Amino acid sequence: MTNGKHFVSDPKTLVRDSLRGLTLANRHLSLDEKEKVVYLNDLATRRHRQVSLFCGGGSGHEPAHAGFVGHGMLTASVSGHVFASPTSSQVLSCLRRVHSEEHGTLVVIKNYTGDVLNFGRAVERFKSERVNSGKPLPKIAMVVVDDDVGVVNPDDDEQGGVGRRGLAGTVLTYKLAGACAANGGSLEKVQETAQYVVSHTFTIGCALNAASVPGQGMPRVLDDNEIEIGMGIHNEPGFEKKAPEPANVLIPSMMDHILKSRPFKTCSGSKTHVVVLVNNLGATSNLEMGLITKLAVEAAVERGLVPERVFSGTYMTGLAMPGASISLLVLPDNEKERQELISLIDEPAYCSGWINQAHVAEAGTTDDSAQGPATPFTPSSNATWEHIIDTAYKNVVRDEPEVTRLDQLMGDGDCGQVLLSGATAIYEASKNTALPLNDPSAALARISALVEDAMGGTSGIIYCLFLDGLAQQLHKLDATTNATLSTKMWGTAMVGALDTLYQYTTARPGHRTLIDALQPFAATLAETGELKAALEKAEAGAKATATMRPMRGRAVYVSQNDGLMDAGAAGLVSVLAGIVGALTVDV
Amino acid sequence: MTNGKHFVSDPKTLVRDSLRGLTLANRHLSLDEKEKVVYLNDLATRRHRQVSLFCGGGSGHEPAHAGFVGHGMLTASVSGHVFASPTSSQVLSCLRRVHSEEHGTLVVIKNYTGDVLNFGRAVERFKSERVNSGKPLPKIAMVVVDDDVGVVNPDDDEQGGVGRRGLAGTVLTYKLAGACAANGGSLEKVQETAQYVVSHTFTIGCALNAASVPGQGMPRVLDDNEIEIGMGIHNEPGFEKKAPEPANVLIPSMMDHILKSRPFKTCSGSKTHVVVLVNNLGATSNLEMGLITKLAVEAAVERGLVPERVFSGTYMTGLAMPGASISLLVLPDNEKERQELISLIDEPAYCSGWINQAHVAEAGTTDDSAQGPATPFTPSSNATWEHIIDTAYKNVVRDEPEVTRLDQLMGDGDCGQVLLSGATAIYEASKNTALPLNDPSAALARISALVEDAMGGTSGIIYCLFLDGLAQQLHKLDATTNATLSTKMWGTAMVGALDTLYQYTTARPGHRTLIDALQPFAATLAETGELKAALEKAEAGAKATATMRPMRGRAVYVSQNDGLMDAGAAGLVSVLAGIVGALTVDV
Repeated sequence: MTNGKHFVSDPKTLVRDSLRGLTLANRHLSLDEKEKVVYLNDLATRRHRQVSLFCGGGSGHEPAHAGFVGHGMLTASVSGHVFASPTSSQVLSCLRRVHSEEHGTLVVIKNYTGDVLNFGRAVERFKSERVNSGKPLPKIAMVVVDDDVGVVNPDDDEQGGVGRRGLAGTVLTYKLAGACAANGGSLEKVQETAQYVVSHTFTIGCALNAASVPGQGMPRVLDDNEIEIGMGIHNEPGFEKKAPEPANVLIPSMMDHILKSRPFKTCSGSKTHVVVLVNNLGATSNLEMGLITKLAVEAAVERGLVPERVFSGTYMTGLAMPGASISLLVLPDNEKERQELISLIDEPAYCSGWINQAHVAEAGTTDDSAQGPATPFTPSSNATWEHIIDTAYKNVVRDEPEVTRLDQLMGDGDCGQVLLSGATAIYEASKNTALPLNDPSAALARISALVEDAMGGTSGIIYCLFLDGLAQQLHKLDATTNATLSTKMWGTAMVGALDTLYQYTTARPGHRTLIDALQPFAATLAETGELKAALEKAEAGAKATATMRPMRGRAVYVSQNDGLMDAGAAGLVSVLAGIVGALTVDV
Repeated sequence: MTNGKHFVSDPKTLVRDSLRGLTLANRHLSLDEKEKVVYLNDLATRRHRQVSLFCGGGSGHEPAHAGFVGHGMLTASVSGHVFASPTSSQVLSCLRRVHSEEHGTLVVIKNYTGDVLNFGRAVERFKSERVNSGKPLPKIAMVVVDDDVGVVNPDDDEQGGVGRRGLAGTVLTYKLAGACAANGGSLEKVQETAQYVVSHTFTIGCALNAASVPGQGMPRVLDDNEIEIGMGIHNEPGFEKKAPEPANVLIPSMMDHILKSRPFKTCSGSKTHVVVLVNNLGATSNLEMGLITKLAVEAAVERGLVPERVFSGTYMTGLAMPGASISLLVLPDNEKERQELISLIDEPAYCSGWINQAHVAEAGTTDDSAQGPATPFTPSSNATWEHIIDTAYKNVVRDEPEVTRLDQLMGDGDCGQVLLSGATAIYEASKNTALPLNDPSAALARISALVEDAMGGTSGIIYCLFLDGLAQQLHKLDATTNATLSTKMWGTAMVGALDTLYQYTTARPGHRTLIDALQPFAATLAETGELKAALEKAEAGAKATATMRPMRGRAVYVSQNDGLMDAGAAGLVSVLAGIVGALTVDV
């Protein structure tokens, strides 16, 4: 929703300013600011090498048209004001600049009265000018694109004689004619190619709303319960307003509309091989564009079509119109002719508006095997581990109400339950002998995986990262069996694991998190090997959080501390007390 | 304005459907639908040739991230739900798939808590998994992009410890690191390159409104008189709401904000050479994007910066957010280092999201001379022509009120005045001896030019096209002087000129336009050479329009005919009567 807000300084200079911006970001382009003509830097040499190909029309349809000026596509473009044809004098100045004496010039425009008359007039002026100065009649051809099948009156697809409008299919015309010209095709060949695309391309659009015009605002607004099929790229009325539909209903219905249109039905051939082009009319999210593309291709396939190529992007807009159009280019039935056109489509074009498709890897190089399963592990039983898990679990069950209470007062209230979920998952896995308890590193990795699934959220990942780090530290210490591990070594491993954790969180002691309990526990254990001493430090650390200003986590958003301990720290102490309790009784 | 309308079927499957659409339009990509991982088709071989480079994050920022998977940029991407980090299991599955045993893997993410923790956790899980299965610790590095300088609290650019967010600068990180990796750079070199970009890229965004989220709608709506500087790509609050400003005030102020930010100021070097990247946040028209780009580059230059490269496009969106961001990448002061980075920027990348800049033509090949002036002409005096012009002009003056009346009743009322403007221009040029009257073809071309300037609109161009056609026909008839032209030859030329006109208008006899008078005049003159007979046919044709259903022009929109003659046809008869009157008295 723009509410009519725009990035505009002076609507009168908007188009030329915008074209200047385009040339700044596309260093292969030059700009004649006065005539609003954008052209190839190397036009002077290019003109001697190929048919010149230029286009133009009103502005507000970017990247059309100037965004398609580049090797392999257009030689130049000429722009009018927003939604208004350039004057014939502008077009004439473009023609004088781009015309190739040796190879000729093809002009491609969209079927709007103003464009046809102004471009036509410029062509005739140019011819008169040439013959009046004693030169031979220049070789110039003009092709008018009219791919719109979303006409106001479906029973009269010539629309009272003015014909169908030019839409996104215009860009396919640029592409194929441009590739043909760049390959050295004659004017006749380039024109024939363009004309093939024109008579075999069919487009239908759907707008969720009209587009706001800089300096003018919204010409009309669709209701919240309306979308419009066939709206033009200048906000012209479409042929049907209807209630919004799920995309998987809407997109197939648009495809049906193309297939049932008279122009599609009367186009020769068996109509099975097609190019699908899905076009963002300006303000549709690219996320949705992906969905529309998928649905359009599926709808085409379901209707017996064979999409040889699929394009999805922003080609021909109506300013920032929320909407999309679907175009079908019907390819020749004849295999050789079809491949010729496809090769023109596949040729790279060097301009900002066209999305070149990357080369496709050969079939068979796709590597799905890379996605191996998780490392297998062998469950094993270990009385010490099982006792630790049992005791820690019971502690968490006992302390959950208090942890929940603390978190309800200073957080979002789920800390106790989340911790209990994690503890329960480990407890049950232990009871079911589903942990590799005789390989401490593997056991920790497995526990980490259980914790992630059971806990989720930020606190779960904090635990997981610590456990992952711990598992790696044990490897570093070459502690592959429980027997080789002293409590001091566990402490050292925990200090190392904290470093892993610190790579991914900025929480540190003093920030009122579980780190305030974990860090002193690890440090003390590493230094002394004394479990009870370490636990005392953890308890003290947790208690100290009661007077800390929250610096991380949800408690940051709570203004008062109220002298309560951090719930996460309290929960960790519950776990640590369980572990230490189990070991100091047993050991 | 989307009014919360979206192209959506099921919000739950939107992301994977959209990714499927992306791969349909980008045949170099494969998709793991379950894990929402997009990867290169030739990943299996690619992995042996270069450092793997992958990225990811929440969806809704397309083309980021999957749109940047391609040779020269990313090896793979992994996507979460809309605006939500992928889980560490998704990331782990991506890592297993893409990791290069020989060269290592670089992970690039944006600085959001969820992304850092989930990607970090996946990296640690992957390491644990490797060491637990007896393999060496894999070479994996992670780079976190935090280019946002539009922070909520400008005095605290670490934002309470969570740091600055990752925005469009992320894509520059992909680009440079991707080019470095594709060129065979080591993991250390690729990471160093990425880290350089991260610590030297600064982005500020401006939103005209928040973005609507499919299935959820608008999280908040800016007022019509508000824009927001620093809004995040997930609709997070920015640091300043203000009234909409002209773009030439707003964009320089955004540039100032970057230059005054602490991160920019503390980045080393003299900070003169930069890359400018202007990013569409989703629903800004490309027309406006051009203007923003121009203003951003101008603002940079005015502030002493040297933009080495300028990019403008849609790189990192917040769904269809109407807004744009500006990023500056500060290049090294050292010339050699700077050129190294620029060459990485210039390397082509083969993916849908990156716009490769075409090769720049050498200076000096730009051909401004092509735009020659209009063909010069030599004014000359000719009594017959001058008398014709004089008589026709007086006829038009006399008949203007009636033509205007007809057009007021059946059109837009300007037909008489427009015709009079044209006639006056020709009359004055004739009086001032400003027409090449002794060269009939040149005279017609000049008259056509005068008519276009004086008349404008559709009717003016119709006259012009006919006159241009006429001029060309005279050349064809080799009638280079008035003496060689018979009335019959004029008739033949007029019939030919009608064919020129018919190329650009679908109006034909019977459509209630000036063609109904022009065509019988030309045909009769060509057949008989009799001026008066031709004029009678023209008058009859004009009268017949009174009973015709309007088929072209503005009268189409008037429901009733009311038995009135077409104003355009009446105007033409006035002109023709003047011409014939002058000639039949004189001859």
